[in-house]
Amino acid sequence: MRRKSLGSVNCSVAQALDVVGDPWTLLIVRDAIFGRRRFDEFVESLGIPRTTLTQRLHTLTEAGVLERRPYQDKPPRHEYVLTEKGLALRPVIVALLQWGDAWSDLPEPPVVLVDEATGDPLRLTYVDETTGRRLEEIRVERQAPDGTQVP
Amino acid sequence: MRRKSLGSVNCSVAQALDVVGDPWTLLIVRDAIFGRRRFDEFVESLGIPRTTLTQRLHTLTEAGVLERRPYQDKPPRHEYVLTEKGLALRPVIVALLQWGDAWSDLPEPPVVLVDEATGDPLRLTYVDETTGRRLEEIRVERQAPDGTQVP
Repeated sequence: MRRKSLGSVNCSVAQALDVVGDPWTLLIVRDAIFGRRRFDEFVESLGIPRTTLTQRLHTLTEAGVLERRPYQDKPPRHEYVLTEKGLALRPVIVALLQWGDAWSDLPEPPVVLVDEATGDPLRLTYVDETTGRRLEEIRVERQAPDGTQVP
Repeated sequence: MRRKSLGSVNCSVAQALDVVGDPWTLLIVRDAIFGRRRFDEFVESLGIPRTTLTQRLHTLTEAGVLERRPYQDKPPRHEYVLTEKGLALRPVIVALLQWGDAWSDLPEPPVVLVDEATGDPLRLTYVDETTGRRLEEIRVERQAPDGTQVP
């Protein structure tokens, strides 16, 4: 059953969740970000039912998050590559990963993100580009484009 | 129908999605982050069916994301307040919001995040705490706790 579309809700969070607001979808994106491309790679990594994977790959391709590319002619085979729009989901995956690391019941983080160039572990934090202040130190308010506060 | 639990998957993203991998759940968290606390406030803001809201608030309270607090005796009434674990989801909401702003079909961002202290719009970006480098500039690799690369 397809859930009710949130795309009509006038909010960018709802718009985002209309594309990626499903656990399998975000796990497929996670796998794609870390280099998986092929149907059987996703099946093996995720333990996802094949019909579910087919449906989610279709949704993500339709939404422009993945691009379906042929990699073999005989027999014809395709792989799924993140588009620019899909790569732009990296902060979402990082945010979920770091929250899971901090708050899940796992005894220790099963996976550590490291800078490939240096091998050093990464601790990623949101800062404001203009002021350099960290999100944790900022009280955030929502405004409509005309400057009025959104409750 | 409760979906299959992802909590057994040994990955912090899956652990996180087991708690918040549902569009309604993340929209409730978004609303809570922006100050909503009461059942009817969530109903009005989200247009969520009341039975669905009851179920999701229960799940979030059980997971320690929200705390249920009495605010009135006669008749007894409760409100739902983010715990520290819940407040720690702010980066997830920011990441989804900014991705939706950048990539949804909305003609302009319907809501702008501003610094309450200065009124200036926020542009939040992930940087590594140690080096100050931006996530966009970093090639990220996954390592197991013993230092071996995770494919």
